Amino acid sequence: MARFMDIHRGMRGITADQLMAAHQADLAIEQEESVHFEHAWADPESGTVYCLSEAPSADAVQRVHERAGHRADEVHPVPFEV
Amino acid sequence: MARFMDIHRGMRGITADQLMAAHQADLAIEQEESVHFEHAWADPESGTVYCLSEAPSADAVQRVHERAGHRADEVHPVPFEV
Repeated sequence: MARFMDIHRGMRGITADQLMAAHQADLAIEQEESVHFEHAWADPESGTVYCLSEAPSADAVQRVHERAGHRADEVHPVPFEV
Repeated sequence: MARFMDIHRGMRGITADQLMAAHQADLAIEQEESVHFEHAWADPESGTVYCLSEAPSADAVQRVHERAGHRADEVHPVPFEV
């Protein structure tokens, strides 16, 4: 397992409720890919959403997002953190 | 005070020690701008570093990073999180 940060763009105007709904859609199926989405942050002005996860691979992260209906634009492993 | 996520690019090959040193350089002066850097994550492969902070403004976040010698490429408010 490793940690990943992914970025969704083009989400201008996203509301707190929509962020919660998108996150819940990920949580509902994440176990099937052995992924856990820990946290998400949204900037409605630039339309950027960041998701932090624990997962076996970037592909697994993307599969959950795709199945939940919101493909990520970038998925990066973040092996270092402070 | 609000929460911000900022992104540094072009940090390919960054090590865990270098991430820690950069974060410490921010922490050493952040109080002068009423900023607090809470967490940072690094992807040495793509050269991307993400920093999460509490700050009075995006400009204050950038001023700390600039004075610490590592200007951010993007600083976004993230008013929503889950």
